[in-house]
Amino acid sequence: MQAENIAIGDELLLGRTINTNSAYIGEKLAEIGIGLKWVTTVGDDEKDIEESFKIAFTRADVVLVTGGLGPTHDDITKNVVAKFFDSKLVMDETVLEAVKERFRKRGIEMAKINETQALVPHNCKVIPNDNGTAPGMLFEKDNKYFIVMPGVPHEMKSMMQKFVIPFLKEKSAGNVIKFKIFRTTGIAESNLFEKIDNLNEITKLVKVAFLPKPSGVDIRLTAYELSEKIADEKLKQAESLITGKIEKWVYAVGEEPIEKTIGKLLREKKLKISVAESCTGGLIANRLTNIPGSSDYFDRGVIAYSNKSKIEILGVPEELIEKYGAVSEEVAKAMALGIRKISCSDIGLSTTGIAGPTGGTPDKPVGLVYIGVSYENETIVEKHNFRNDRITNKERFSQSALNLVRKVLTEKE
Amino acid sequence: MQAENIAIGDELLLGRTINTNSAYIGEKLAEIGIGLKWVTTVGDDEKDIEESFKIAFTRADVVLVTGGLGPTHDDITKNVVAKFFDSKLVMDETVLEAVKERFRKRGIEMAKINETQALVPHNCKVIPNDNGTAPGMLFEKDNKYFIVMPGVPHEMKSMMQKFVIPFLKEKSAGNVIKFKIFRTTGIAESNLFEKIDNLNEITKLVKVAFLPKPSGVDIRLTAYELSEKIADEKLKQAESLITGKIEKWVYAVGEEPIEKTIGKLLREKKLKISVAESCTGGLIANRLTNIPGSSDYFDRGVIAYSNKSKIEILGVPEELIEKYGAVSEEVAKAMALGIRKISCSDIGLSTTGIAGPTGGTPDKPVGLVYIGVSYENETIVEKHNFRNDRITNKERFSQSALNLVRKVLTEKE
Repeated sequence: MQAENIAIGDELLLGRTINTNSAYIGEKLAEIGIGLKWVTTVGDDEKDIEESFKIAFTRADVVLVTGGLGPTHDDITKNVVAKFFDSKLVMDETVLEAVKERFRKRGIEMAKINETQALVPHNCKVIPNDNGTAPGMLFEKDNKYFIVMPGVPHEMKSMMQKFVIPFLKEKSAGNVIKFKIFRTTGIAESNLFEKIDNLNEITKLVKVAFLPKPSGVDIRLTAYELSEKIADEKLKQAESLITGKIEKWVYAVGEEPIEKTIGKLLREKKLKISVAESCTGGLIANRLTNIPGSSDYFDRGVIAYSNKSKIEILGVPEELIEKYGAVSEEVAKAMALGIRKISCSDIGLSTTGIAGPTGGTPDKPVGLVYIGVSYENETIVEKHNFRNDRITNKERFSQSALNLVRKVLTEKE
Repeated sequence: MQAENIAIGDELLLGRTINTNSAYIGEKLAEIGIGLKWVTTVGDDEKDIEESFKIAFTRADVVLVTGGLGPTHDDITKNVVAKFFDSKLVMDETVLEAVKERFRKRGIEMAKINETQALVPHNCKVIPNDNGTAPGMLFEKDNKYFIVMPGVPHEMKSMMQKFVIPFLKEKSAGNVIKFKIFRTTGIAESNLFEKIDNLNEITKLVKVAFLPKPSGVDIRLTAYELSEKIADEKLKQAESLITGKIEKWVYAVGEEPIEKTIGKLLREKKLKISVAESCTGGLIANRLTNIPGSSDYFDRGVIAYSNKSKIEILGVPEELIEKYGAVSEEVAKAMALGIRKISCSDIGLSTTGIAGPTGGTPDKPVGLVYIGVSYENETIVEKHNFRNDRITNKERFSQSALNLVRKVLTEKE
């Protein structure tokens, strides 16, 4: 079974709205062995939408349409779909009641316009929306499935999980696509590629992809096979050919971010961490606390942006800042020690650097960072030099900092 | 001139890699009056890529291809392009030197494989890549332009800015697309829609779209006109019909995030802010420090995750936590006052709530948050109740917190 996703919305073509839905849909379909082969993005234009429906119907077995189901005038998907399937729009009382109930629960008055959300094509199956007012729709025609969902990500995701994936899983039953991801950090894509000197052998078993990101390079192994058992077997064989060569840089097998790896390590070892951030400005704490249950091992963070705050809260000696500058190995060390001390945590993590775009000097350029980790009897400092924009620098600083904690905790074993 | 973007990469279809490039390309093209009409995403598959090239060539004047130019075996775009244009690949010495220089500068040994990056089709114009090893390519055929760029976002963006946009701007010269965005927060899409009761009048001038996001609803006005002057005039007229009705909820005209609005307000008023975050875990500080130059007005932040840290660093009275609980109006107030006091900042901002997925009770459900702002002689607390997943809750908490600062600073005027 091959699928196409049609993403509808001028905002995807014109503006800064990033299409996150297609990646989610592709991943979830892959898990049940359906390959997403095409994603077509078109604007809120009747002709273009119709045309994309026609093309998709010729090449795909499943068409998943997202977007343009809102209550306002610029949402035209429902009408185009109704025309495409020769439908009449009829009021669905169950949907209407659900829409009304949503507003009642939040204690907000319902704008009259929301009632139109309950008008649905007479010849579709309604997919309930537990997170919003626009219902989804399922059409079957010529042994093909045509599914329409809202573009709001959490509404679409909930429909996929509760209805679309179980439905399609039952209808498909063919090949299986399984994959395994090794997440690495601290090594360049081309160097990683050279470390895996037996790639020819591996690609006989699975497809191998190198995916570089600011946070590091992911290696993805993909098995397209007739059964789950064969796919698992091939992935296992491929993994055994790869792991010894790159182990040092792998922080996760799977798709979890490094903050989750750190969380697991801390929980296992019953350790608490606190952070003292300057150039990362709260990003490390934010990432650590994105993980549910992080209050078990994350005690506190201090964002010591001004020199005064480094001195006052973290107890960094003023002379140190004067002598070496706030961005220095010495200050990173004092910050890591300081936060560890005031929080009585087992680990103190610190960053001080220059995120940019201004503030750099020839000696201390934009992208320079010192990362300190204080643990047991040692406080170590690592220095990096990235050359990116402010946001990417912050991301790479935080990734390197979390990776240093990982190295300290795993190399001590 | 109409454009199509072909985004290449299995990772976009299979995995969790989100296609951020197309939105960027669409926006930049719109600024010079070229409409991005289609985005087609295909995998690293020779047949699918070729097919997409053919379809795009029939309907678009400009085709922008992104992705699949890396040095590893899974990057096949260059070979498919060369075949499509009957090219021979030749070694480009300028590109080769630039690639070598990149590695020299970073002090990293160059993996041999990177040399293949300097092989380019003989019949294209090379587009230099200042941020990576893969050069871009420009082909002209049948009065159409075919541009190939790497998929790594900052490499592609730099090529767009330095080469592609100036080049296409000169070649186009037709209609103009201009838009204006009003960013609102704190009001539901349907309510916002009803506030604008003169939509019929406005849509005679411009296209109007409502774009809901966790951070609020954007209203986008788009003018498609023959000249910049007419487009500006229509946008101005439309704006005058809209602003009085929604002013209260608009935090920015343009695409800036609310942290930038806050930065401007603080800079104007010469005020300093510090934050005390519990449930937002550093996200507010991270957002504030994403803005270049934020050290001018952001002094420090405390992520007081444990009760002990609330007491020790912020001076929240222990009895208060015992009596009302850490998630309460009283503690939010004490946190805002506490951070303001220890930092000598003009404004203290605090959050305490339950991000979830666990930790909720019938009285204090997941999604509950108290936000405190201490400024001048007052400390106010706002309560919200969101019902989302952990990450979305954190985002909405932080957005509401920054919006409360905005309201306090603007309503005091």
